Amino acid sequence: MAKKARESKVDFRPHFKTHQSAEIGAWFRDEGITKITVSSVKMAQYFSEHGWNDITIAFHYNPLAREEIAVLAEKISLNILIESEEALTHVNKNIDANIGYFIKIDVGTGRTGISKDRFGEIPSLAKSKNKKHHFKGFLAHAGHSYKKINRSEAEAIYGESIEILKEAQRTINTKVTFSYGDTPTCSLLDSFPDIDEIRPGNFAFYDFMQYSFGTCGLEDIAVCMVCPVVSIHSDRNEAVVYGGAVHFSKDQLLENLAPFGIVVPLHKKGWGPKPEARLIRLSQEHGIVGGSPKFISSLKIGDLLGILPVHSCLTANLQQSYLSLDGQEIPKIN
Amino acid sequence: MAKKARESKVDFRPHFKTHQSAEIGAWFRDEGITKITVSSVKMAQYFSEHGWNDITIAFHYNPLAREEIAVLAEKISLNILIESEEALTHVNKNIDANIGYFIKIDVGTGRTGISKDRFGEIPSLAKSKNKKHHFKGFLAHAGHSYKKINRSEAEAIYGESIEILKEAQRTINTKVTFSYGDTPTCSLLDSFPDIDEIRPGNFAFYDFMQYSFGTCGLEDIAVCMVCPVVSIHSDRNEAVVYGGAVHFSKDQLLENLAPFGIVVPLHKKGWGPKPEARLIRLSQEHGIVGGSPKFISSLKIGDLLGILPVHSCLTANLQQSYLSLDGQEIPKIN
Repeated sequence: MAKKARESKVDFRPHFKTHQSAEIGAWFRDEGITKITVSSVKMAQYFSEHGWNDITIAFHYNPLAREEIAVLAEKISLNILIESEEALTHVNKNIDANIGYFIKIDVGTGRTGISKDRFGEIPSLAKSKNKKHHFKGFLAHAGHSYKKINRSEAEAIYGESIEILKEAQRTINTKVTFSYGDTPTCSLLDSFPDIDEIRPGNFAFYDFMQYSFGTCGLEDIAVCMVCPVVSIHSDRNEAVVYGGAVHFSKDQLLENLAPFGIVVPLHKKGWGPKPEARLIRLSQEHGIVGGSPKFISSLKIGDLLGILPVHSCLTANLQQSYLSLDGQEIPKIN
Repeated sequence: MAKKARESKVDFRPHFKTHQSAEIGAWFRDEGITKITVSSVKMAQYFSEHGWNDITIAFHYNPLAREEIAVLAEKISLNILIESEEALTHVNKNIDANIGYFIKIDVGTGRTGISKDRFGEIPSLAKSKNKKHHFKGFLAHAGHSYKKINRSEAEAIYGESIEILKEAQRTINTKVTFSYGDTPTCSLLDSFPDIDEIRPGNFAFYDFMQYSFGTCGLEDIAVCMVCPVVSIHSDRNEAVVYGGAVHFSKDQLLENLAPFGIVVPLHKKGWGPKPEARLIRLSQEHGIVGGSPKFISSLKIGDLLGILPVHSCLTANLQQSYLSLDGQEIPKIN
């Protein structure tokens, strides 16, 4: 991803909400990355403490966090997100520190951001009433790319998004930064014309959902949950693992045979390549694995199964740390 | 629940996996409760450290946790769960401490436990080959009661469960403990004939799922997530709160207008009574609230919304602590 960004001459501001780890963050630094994205003030504080000094909080400005944001903005180069006059006015009146802000644009997802019919609000939003607050540009997240998608569909979503950002820019007649980012389109596209920075996050780990969408290969999935078998039900070709909703969270792929993830063989130095069973149900602490009679009959209690989770961001968020393949504990925010 | 158990002359061994808090646990002690249920070794350790000395871990024996279990069994009266010869043999050979064990019986849920067609295995499982390991009885969890259910349906599930437990008991010709527990049937039944103890857990908080099932009233829901409004989209009658899957987890009621919970008015000393909006979508940090034009137009960013979560166990699990209505922080396991 770093190479693709360099070749496209765009800034690479990876989203760190997926791994939430200073140590994993340092691997990005080794690739020359100096700017990052996070999704909460707490994450911004954590990564600031670990030496990152150019951070965009890609989540709406929360008036209740004004003090923490102001403290942070004194220390580092901080960007926040606004999408209403109400939010900008609150920032202008309450944050007495240098801070950058992006206007969130809805490029078709319908979750957040200013949609086309409200573009009349942009010129006023682009003019800060406080000299310490600097309008940086437009930020978009094409959330509607999170589905079964091929390269030409990703290109279409990207193209439409750029057109919408350009239309936003025409309301102010000034060239500003276009910040764009989601794992599916950033993974499927070869280059990023007409934008200034990309902010994908999930690609760092990928997961079974991204694989199902066609965004990555199974071999690209970089996290695996290891769960002990605690019960075997050969009569229905199922086994139970200690690994439930409190470990995986409970995102799911509806109508997928493996709604919560897939089981892959564990080796001394990794896992894979081929799936051998499926995570089919989750309750609070139980995970139900479905597999072939041959697979289920090969198990005994206490065996460890490797499971590629359906949504790595939520699963990683529930863990205290990672274990690397060479046995090192990799801490994360808790 | 404690009163109902007393009147039914059954032991009340509440499941503490829902609140996971020593302080909330102490409120149960005030009701005369001395025995509890937990779902992990870690929770058993935590509550043991907080003065509970009669604990059932209502989750399958995990061979990989044998050392922690043995240490705990030396300190307190500990019961574990087994459902195979393989598990019992492992316990017999590896745990050198006094410990009680229950045999998990599948009363129709099809998740875990020994189902009727395997009852031939019970006599051997009921005979421990290690004198320190004591067979206590049969444990059942009617997970199939977690659906839209009325009192007579709950009574039917209870009745069928008892018949299955009695059938299990006939294989050994000895009266043993029947431990039964799930929030829907324990909530809907008035008394608990033919069993020895109940183990409901979720009832301590209840949640929007239980309300939707008909198990509790809205006024019985004892936890509320408070989330700030960060964005308002009047054009589609939606608002965005800082409260996503990392705060609520992502259990959901499919085909419900409020799949992730409902918004209730907050007062100085509580919330409710009537729902005023719905939590309709969740991404990692965003919650999307849908409401009437009047409700949405009444909001401004920074307002706090009270949200009754769809599944309180998973939501509480993601929080570091609770805040009581009189402003006290109530710690929990982390």
